[in-house]
Amino acid sequence: MLYLIGLGLGDAKDITVKGLEVVRRCSRVYLEAYTSVLTVGKEALEEFYGRKLILADREEVEQEADNIFKDADVSDVAFLVVGDPFGATTHSDLILRATKLGIPYQVIHNASIMNAVGCCGLQLYKFGETVSIVFWTDTWRPESFFDKVKKNRQNGMHTLCLLDIKVKEQSLENLIRGRKIYEPPRYMSVNQAAQQLLEIVQNQRARGEEPAITEETLCVGLARVGAEDQKIAAGTLQQMCTVDLGEPLHSLVITGGTLHPLEMEMLSLFSIPESQSINGL
Amino acid sequence: MLYLIGLGLGDAKDITVKGLEVVRRCSRVYLEAYTSVLTVGKEALEEFYGRKLILADREEVEQEADNIFKDADVSDVAFLVVGDPFGATTHSDLILRATKLGIPYQVIHNASIMNAVGCCGLQLYKFGETVSIVFWTDTWRPESFFDKVKKNRQNGMHTLCLLDIKVKEQSLENLIRGRKIYEPPRYMSVNQAAQQLLEIVQNQRARGEEPAITEETLCVGLARVGAEDQKIAAGTLQQMCTVDLGEPLHSLVITGGTLHPLEMEMLSLFSIPESQSINGL
Repeated sequence: MLYLIGLGLGDAKDITVKGLEVVRRCSRVYLEAYTSVLTVGKEALEEFYGRKLILADREEVEQEADNIFKDADVSDVAFLVVGDPFGATTHSDLILRATKLGIPYQVIHNASIMNAVGCCGLQLYKFGETVSIVFWTDTWRPESFFDKVKKNRQNGMHTLCLLDIKVKEQSLENLIRGRKIYEPPRYMSVNQAAQQLLEIVQNQRARGEEPAITEETLCVGLARVGAEDQKIAAGTLQQMCTVDLGEPLHSLVITGGTLHPLEMEMLSLFSIPESQSINGL
Repeated sequence: MLYLIGLGLGDAKDITVKGLEVVRRCSRVYLEAYTSVLTVGKEALEEFYGRKLILADREEVEQEADNIFKDADVSDVAFLVVGDPFGATTHSDLILRATKLGIPYQVIHNASIMNAVGCCGLQLYKFGETVSIVFWTDTWRPESFFDKVKKNRQNGMHTLCLLDIKVKEQSLENLIRGRKIYEPPRYMSVNQAAQQLLEIVQNQRARGEEPAITEETLCVGLARVGAEDQKIAAGTLQQMCTVDLGEPLHSLVITGGTLHPLEMEMLSLFSIPESQSINGL
């Protein structure tokens, strides 16, 4: 049996009791470590689970996955995913390949940012399509996701923006030279995401278009959701450029315009103090 | 401290390790038992947690909640919610009232149907606004939620339909006579939801409108998501009227029209066999 087990969002203890029992009895346990991260590393998980974990990188999971599937038809193999196994589409693909090989699978769900984002007080059922914001480079500055934000806002829906993660990336030079030297991991902050969003807004204005959001659009920045030191800040998009949310992971919500009074009241618990306002910090 | 703890979707062991530790050390533990249910009852939870649970009904939670808040500023009180605490808006309200009383709170997240629905293979980020389908009565047959389904489909988004739950309901007679006698709990099945949807479609046609969905629209029925005996069935809305998914809870997804090839392939794992097709059962 192949078990896909969600680890939730905080630390080692956010696994479910059911998930932990399975981890402890499986013959091999893989940790998917490229779509998201917890607030603790592999070693802390190994210590708490009492099991060695095998890091699975993107190549391994998205290619053959032969190692992962080996003997999974006759023994139990666990594949651990931060959040819920269905947060990333790549895991559907893993299930399809397992099924084709005649390997049965079972999913043990957990919280993902897709539902835990509700902790900011915005109502979950009012979220429209989720978007991903990637790190811009000098030559690649995609803006197409912005159409989805626009459509969501036109429909009065909030937009959850998942922020880019770069782990096990090679520099261009190392890539060209075939050197398996990896850059330090990078996690997009709410500040960076907000700055990229503002640049898109300015580009649209420069082209004479009316942008779907402005510097004043109400947003919510979230950091380390589910951890004890999670931070939530509600304020304008401009404020999101400078608010200090600390360590990764960060997520950003662009609100959908009209808010329910209950949503407003919840957001007020997290509003950015004056000292951190547009001109502050 | 007031702890809001998600129990996930299956049975007693779907609580997180962190959640279980808190439950075991709190001075009082409440179980919210009117927005959703697990596949096991209060007694099974009490046995596994090793704690007595106090059932909290809608009146208690939505009114003063004095009992729940009592001493929560100086001791630890747990409030358990099936799924994730932010699946239902009523729990935001509980947090707001706690905050006003100066009671600190912490949330321990878990899977909710809002993210676990991804197990059917439809991509989570392509879900639009979630709707609720309520039991119709002879005199109350709301159709307004259908506009949201329409809007979602126009935008190519899937619609998660949460199906009605009636627990601790009084018959009209008992209500009028002030008798606290409650009807047996009722949980809407995918069959019932699909039949109500088809009736709306027929009503719209009778009024000369073009309905956003038809008998042939691809839907997914889900039952007991997260439990070992979960069932998923993909087929037409017409098929959803007769497919047998067994015990509660059920949920229904109306697909958003164009599917990603990966979504199609995942759904094919769950397609209803010919024998259960439109004329079958």
